[in-house]
Amino acid sequence: MADVREKMQEYIKIVEEKLFSYLPKAENGQDIVCDAMRYSITNGGKRIRPVLVLEFCRLCGGNIEKALPFACAVEMIHTYSLIHDDLPCMDDDDMRRGKPSCHIKFGEEYALLAGDGLLNLAFETMLKETLNSDDTKSFIKAAYTLARSSGVQGMIGGQVIDLLSENSKNSLERLKVMDKLKTGALIEASCLMGCIIANADEEKLNAALKYAENIGLAFQIVDDILDVIGEPEELGKPIGSDEENEKTTYVSILGLDEAKNYAEKLSEDAVSALTVFGDDAEFLSELARLLCVRKK
Amino acid sequence: MADVREKMQEYIKIVEEKLFSYLPKAENGQDIVCDAMRYSITNGGKRIRPVLVLEFCRLCGGNIEKALPFACAVEMIHTYSLIHDDLPCMDDDDMRRGKPSCHIKFGEEYALLAGDGLLNLAFETMLKETLNSDDTKSFIKAAYTLARSSGVQGMIGGQVIDLLSENSKNSLERLKVMDKLKTGALIEASCLMGCIIANADEEKLNAALKYAENIGLAFQIVDDILDVIGEPEELGKPIGSDEENEKTTYVSILGLDEAKNYAEKLSEDAVSALTVFGDDAEFLSELARLLCVRKK
Repeated sequence: MADVREKMQEYIKIVEEKLFSYLPKAENGQDIVCDAMRYSITNGGKRIRPVLVLEFCRLCGGNIEKALPFACAVEMIHTYSLIHDDLPCMDDDDMRRGKPSCHIKFGEEYALLAGDGLLNLAFETMLKETLNSDDTKSFIKAAYTLARSSGVQGMIGGQVIDLLSENSKNSLERLKVMDKLKTGALIEASCLMGCIIANADEEKLNAALKYAENIGLAFQIVDDILDVIGEPEELGKPIGSDEENEKTTYVSILGLDEAKNYAEKLSEDAVSALTVFGDDAEFLSELARLLCVRKK
Repeated sequence: MADVREKMQEYIKIVEEKLFSYLPKAENGQDIVCDAMRYSITNGGKRIRPVLVLEFCRLCGGNIEKALPFACAVEMIHTYSLIHDDLPCMDDDDMRRGKPSCHIKFGEEYALLAGDGLLNLAFETMLKETLNSDDTKSFIKAAYTLARSSGVQGMIGGQVIDLLSENSKNSLERLKVMDKLKTGALIEASCLMGCIIANADEEKLNAALKYAENIGLAFQIVDDILDVIGEPEELGKPIGSDEENEKTTYVSILGLDEAKNYAEKLSEDAVSALTVFGDDAEFLSELARLLCVRKK
C-alpha cells in the first residue's frame, strides 16, 4: 500500500504541473473567472481519474506524456461538474473539500461561468494537442470517448437521474444506473483513454472497461459507507447527510455489512479483470483495494 | 433583399434538420434534460452563425455537407450561452424570443444541465464527425477554432466583462472589447470554420475574419439601436431596457444618428472585405446590409 500511495503522488505531481499550466490567463480583464477556475482546480481532490489515464497508458506500453492532456481534460470536466453541482439550484453546498465552494468564494454567476470555462477548456486542450500531434486518430478517439462520457448519455444524464430521485425511493437497479452514469462514466472514460492513446487492442480495452465499471461502483458504495461510519475530520465534511436527506443509498438498501461485502467483491472483480495485463498491473490492483479501505 | 431572405430560409432548413437530428434521446430516464435542450434549440433565432459557416464554405469551393456539423455545433454553443445567460444568477430573464426561458419552463437545475449538455454536445458532435471523416486535419482545425472562440478568451470572457461592467460606465473601447468577445468571437469562428472546412488559403481566411469583425460589431450596434427605436412586437421583447438599466451602449455613447452611421460604415467595410471572393459574394454582401436594416 505504501508503494501505491507513493506512485499516486508521483502521478499527481506530473498531472498537476501540466493541469495548472493549461489554465488560461486573463487577457481582457476577465481575471475573476480565471481565478475561480484556478481556485476550484487547485483545491486538491484525489485525482483518481487522471491517474487512471496515465497508468492504463503506461500499462498498455504507451507514452504517458501523450496521455497527459487527456488526464488533465478529464480532471477539468470532473471539476466543472463539482462547481455546477454545488450551486444553489443544484445541491446548494457551501463547502467543498473543507473550503468555501466556488460560488461562495466568487459569486454564483462567476462560478457558473468558471464551470462552463473548465468544460470548454477540456475540449480546447484536447483539440489543441491533437492539432499538434501525429497520433491524430487515437487522439480524436480518446477525446470523443471523453465527450460521450461527460454528456447527456453519461455524467450529465446521471446528474439528472440523481435530481429526479431526490424525493423518491430508489431501487438498487436504479441506483446502479445513476452511479454508472454520474460517476462511472468518467472513470470508464479515464481507463479507456489511457488504453486508446497507447493503441491497445480490443481485449485490453474490454479489460479496462471491466476494471472501471467495478471500481466505479465500489467507489460509490464506499462513499455511502463513509457517510455512515467515516470520520468527519478525515472526510472534510460532516457525516450522516444521506440519512438526514432520506437519500436512498447502498447502505440504506443493503445494510452496512452487506454494502461492505459488495464493495469488496467489486474490488476483487476489478483485480480479476486485470489478468490480461500480467504481473505489471500491481499498481491498479492495489489501487482497487485501496479505494475500498480508504478513510476519505 | 428578397433573394438573400430566400437563400437564408434554404440554409436554415438544412441546418435545422441536421441540428435536431443531433439532439440526444433519453436512454435512462433523463428525458427532462433532453426536452429542455430541444425546447431551447428549436426556439427559432436567426441562425446567423450556422448560415455563415455554410456560405463561407460554399464560397471557398467546399462541400457544405462537410461544414454542416460545425454549423450545428456553433448553434448549440450559442444556444447554451443563452440558456445560462437567462438564469437568475445571470441576467434573470423570464422570456426568450417571446417564450418562457428554459429555466422558467423546466426549472433552474435542468436549465443549467441543458446548457452544459448543449456545450458538451457541440464537441461530441464535431469529434464524432471527425472520427468518421477523412478530412481529419481541417475538421480538427475547425473544432479547435470554435473551442477557442467559445472559451474564457472568447465568448465566456465577454460575458464576464459584461457582468463586471453592470454597475459602471463603459468606455467605447471597453464596449468594443466586450462585444468582440461576447458576440464577435462566435461570429468570427463561424466564418473561419466555413473557410477551414473548404481548405481556403490565408488570404480568404483573413477576408472572412475581417468580414466577421465588421458584421459582429455592426450587429451589436443595431441591437442597441433597436432597444431605443424598435417595435416591441417585432422584437418579441420590450424596448428601453438598456436605458432603464443605465447600461452603457453605442447609442448612449455616440447618440442615435452617430450609432446608425457607425453601423452602416461597418457594414460597408464588411462588404469591402469580400472583394477577394469576386462576384460570388453577393449573398454575404446583402446579408451584411440586411443586418443593418433589420427590425428584429
